[in-house]
Amino acid sequence: MNDVAIGVDVGGTKALALIVARDGRVLGEVMSPTPHDESHGAGEATAEVLTDQVLQLATRHGLKANGVPVGIGLPGLMRRDGHLAFAPNLQSASGADLGALLGSSLGSSLVYCENDANCAALCEHEWGAGRGIDDFVMVTLGTGIGGGVIADGELVRGRSGFAGEIGHMVVDARGAACLCGGFGCWERYASGGGLGRLTREAAEEGRLPTLVAQRGGTEFVSAEDVTAAAAEGLDEALALVREVGWWLALGLSNLAAILDCGHFVIGGGLSSASDLVLPYAREYLIDLVEGYDVRPTITIMKSMFGPRSGAMGAALVAFERHS
Amino acid sequence: MNDVAIGVDVGGTKALALIVARDGRVLGEVMSPTPHDESHGAGEATAEVLTDQVLQLATRHGLKANGVPVGIGLPGLMRRDGHLAFAPNLQSASGADLGALLGSSLGSSLVYCENDANCAALCEHEWGAGRGIDDFVMVTLGTGIGGGVIADGELVRGRSGFAGEIGHMVVDARGAACLCGGFGCWERYASGGGLGRLTREAAEEGRLPTLVAQRGGTEFVSAEDVTAAAAEGLDEALALVREVGWWLALGLSNLAAILDCGHFVIGGGLSSASDLVLPYAREYLIDLVEGYDVRPTITIMKSMFGPRSGAMGAALVAFERHS
Repeated sequence: MNDVAIGVDVGGTKALALIVARDGRVLGEVMSPTPHDESHGAGEATAEVLTDQVLQLATRHGLKANGVPVGIGLPGLMRRDGHLAFAPNLQSASGADLGALLGSSLGSSLVYCENDANCAALCEHEWGAGRGIDDFVMVTLGTGIGGGVIADGELVRGRSGFAGEIGHMVVDARGAACLCGGFGCWERYASGGGLGRLTREAAEEGRLPTLVAQRGGTEFVSAEDVTAAAAEGLDEALALVREVGWWLALGLSNLAAILDCGHFVIGGGLSSASDLVLPYAREYLIDLVEGYDVRPTITIMKSMFGPRSGAMGAALVAFERHS
Repeated sequence: MNDVAIGVDVGGTKALALIVARDGRVLGEVMSPTPHDESHGAGEATAEVLTDQVLQLATRHGLKANGVPVGIGLPGLMRRDGHLAFAPNLQSASGADLGALLGSSLGSSLVYCENDANCAALCEHEWGAGRGIDDFVMVTLGTGIGGGVIADGELVRGRSGFAGEIGHMVVDARGAACLCGGFGCWERYASGGGLGRLTREAAEEGRLPTLVAQRGGTEFVSAEDVTAAAAEGLDEALALVREVGWWLALGLSNLAAILDCGHFVIGGGLSSASDLVLPYAREYLIDLVEGYDVRPTITIMKSMFGPRSGAMGAALVAFERHS
């Protein structure tokens, strides 16, 4: 068994590569912008960046790049065979087998791929806020909502490996249009993107008068303005944060109904607003979960490793599949 | 290992007991009305009926009642320890440990309890329409919607054993009130009860003029009228059946997003209308599932054992826990 593995979390804007010890300690990191060059073959530009990251980390630690297991966390529908079947936020790599591309450029047979939110779930389960908990869901709140489902101690991958697409659970059948082509998807309400959308809606409907006056127009009020004003206690901003908390709780209560998970770990880019949103979500969950009072308490915690959980989990995937 | 087991499916109106061989053959059956006597202790009236059923079946087959493993399928939130924590359709047994009550009256230590839809899922997985399929969801359409989730070949039970409460997944956040206290639960749209509700709504809104005229008033048009008229090709009835098909597909697509299950088995009391509803559901699923075209085909089949799958699955639970 290897002492270290490299995990890379490929996001829509940046790729974070970490070299990680078997006990979860992060020994080194490289961050690069994610290329969106579609002129080469699918995934080739991405594979080049990842190759460079792996080589940097391996060299820095005196290791051969083809001797270290490497895990890659990718956004979108990851097939069990390693192909990225559908990736709206990483179009240039859609359809690619990044494991094969990276393996070939490194001369390594130790490259493994997994969905990014699944990686985060595995990381939190092994080392973080889901440690020792057999039934929980990792919820990553970013532009959209990603998810990783742990049931009875195991990651639920589903038939093709696509499980955990919780952001596209429809919670409002006649609701807002989603990039996926559907309507009323959860991520249109409870993510960073959802907060942005609700902010525009509220500004236009006159529910954010102070912020609109401060910014000089409805179109200049951002989700960040709302978060900052809510942190300072501005009522109109708090009302909007409360609304996001309600929508977050609604989706969590659906997951609790389907999976009877007693715990949620919240990660992703909205995490900075989590301190404001989560207390409301916890409050609303009590009303929204069927039979809440006959269940043990349902807990919601923030991710222990924040933006690193995806890459750490990718390293964990590499450890586990390699062993 | 025992050659036979007894399985009882306790519904809101009747209890069906079957004696079943290890290969799934049903060797005998007893059907009794479910008692709703709340004057005794919780579950006592139910346990009496079940005791009588088990004794009848055992005697008929020349067996000692305390030597045959018995499984009980119960509606509602079944705790892993065998207590029925919450049962809106079986109030008189709510909170009871029916396994202990029945075990005591039979002098048997071989009594095992499980949620009824979970039993149906296990039955279809072992012997029926989910055989050989690792990732599927059993969906029972009755007054409400029950569910049993099979992921990677195993029943998902969740922390307390409450997983599969798919009928209380909210799909319409500002929607119809549900008995559970929530709003917009899936079962208010896609179950037998949902069809009844949509029928009343459509009749009142003037969308069922022919049926209202035939029946002599909006209040006299039932879900059964709609199903019968749809079977005969009446457009206004078909439109309503199509609507139920859309709602059914919406919830199934949510489950497919979360679990990446490639298959659904539909059972329960609405099954008689399934032949009408399922073709529409299959059609709408194509639009509703995110990335439908990059996934292998998602299939929807009717339960192979219909109203018997719950009791057969309860027998299977008895076989498996006893062995």
